[in-house]
Amino acid sequence: MIPPDHPRYRSLVVREHLAKCAQQGIVSWEGLTAHGRGEAFDYLLGERTTDSARVAERTAAAMLLSAQHPVISINGNTAALAAPEIAALQRACHAIVEVNLFHRTEERVKHIEDLLRDAGVDVFSGKAERLLALSHDRAWCRREGMYTADVVLVPLEDGDRCEALVAMGKKVIAIDLNPLSRTAKTATLTVVDELTRALPEITRACTELTKIEQEHLVTSLDNHYLLREAIREMTTRFCHAMD
Amino acid sequence: MIPPDHPRYRSLVVREHLAKCAQQGIVSWEGLTAHGRGEAFDYLLGERTTDSARVAERTAAAMLLSAQHPVISINGNTAALAAPEIAALQRACHAIVEVNLFHRTEERVKHIEDLLRDAGVDVFSGKAERLLALSHDRAWCRREGMYTADVVLVPLEDGDRCEALVAMGKKVIAIDLNPLSRTAKTATLTVVDELTRALPEITRACTELTKIEQEHLVTSLDNHYLLREAIREMTTRFCHAMD
Repeated sequence: MIPPDHPRYRSLVVREHLAKCAQQGIVSWEGLTAHGRGEAFDYLLGERTTDSARVAERTAAAMLLSAQHPVISINGNTAALAAPEIAALQRACHAIVEVNLFHRTEERVKHIEDLLRDAGVDVFSGKAERLLALSHDRAWCRREGMYTADVVLVPLEDGDRCEALVAMGKKVIAIDLNPLSRTAKTATLTVVDELTRALPEITRACTELTKIEQEHLVTSLDNHYLLREAIREMTTRFCHAMD
Repeated sequence: MIPPDHPRYRSLVVREHLAKCAQQGIVSWEGLTAHGRGEAFDYLLGERTTDSARVAERTAAAMLLSAQHPVISINGNTAALAAPEIAALQRACHAIVEVNLFHRTEERVKHIEDLLRDAGVDVFSGKAERLLALSHDRAWCRREGMYTADVVLVPLEDGDRCEALVAMGKKVIAIDLNPLSRTAKTATLTVVDELTRALPEITRACTELTKIEQEHLVTSLDNHYLLREAIREMTTRFCHAMD
């Protein structure tokens, strides 16, 4: 039991939830470590949505709304942390949601799909094939899903898959708290924010943006600038923390 | 299987090892997440021992050598990552080594003690009592071990225990990659370096330091300065990463 007076109570409760999801086979063991990495960068962000992240979130909404065939790719951590938020975003942008795992077993895919459906997600679960140029389990995806997509939202993705999708000519939106990760640097657009803060912001923007605003956000996208801003916001906080 | 051509191969192998240790009950699930947090800060350090960390490591050696009753406190992550390095340090500084867990069960304690003994550690495992002013399992320690210590090395410790030990008048040496953590800020001395790099450096210093050097390092200790330097080294790297 985590004592409620612990200064990091909320963070510890989330960790405990993910640990339970790991024991149930939803989150991979390595996914727990990846979560910790994100936690550290969120700590540097001050655990809040920064101004540049908000611009990125509005741009993500614009890209999803203007896509022909938008797909949201879900892994274990995303399902464990934000299944209801994914359902809400899907309703707002009408994207296909499919499960793609780094540590892939049919059983884990099924388990995660069930969890998403329970949260109200319309899960696309056609037959998976090895369609991506990757050397491990992540090569798998579905022909009518991610393979055909023009815009793919990959929350918490690894660098390899992000690179493969960009190489296939897709516009990739990543949600990644590490602005220096390969994913962050390779993606078309990187949202440097924590998942459960980022998804509702993107959803809200989907319901608010006018056609003109959408076009303006998509054409003015400068991911290098957004990443530099995220780093500037983190280092400014970091440098003043010991004053 | 992790492909050997993966750019983060080494980091993934360590994660997989920790995941196995979690399944064996040595590392707690939450310990996996804590490891990920450390990974992120190590990434900012450039995964190397900085100049200020080396000063901290030499000072840690000096404090251990000049202690009356030095104790090294081990948790699951430390045992999983660095049991042989702990054995070597114990030989060099003649400290008592005892196991203290956040997520404490008799079975986990036993398991970790066995792992340490297999690596050559002389483990102190007297009867544990609730001796620290803490609200959870971490209150437990041993009267002739940590409770009596004047200098305690706590690799990968949490903030609560660190505060409790300092409040008891002990000199606490922490190894913590996050220079902003409560542990880092509360400890008498904080080594901002990765565990398996830090321990051999401390061990080497134990065999090298003269009596005069020991005294000088202990009297000139300025942890606030060391933490500022660690932050400066991280932010400098971070700011230039996007140039």
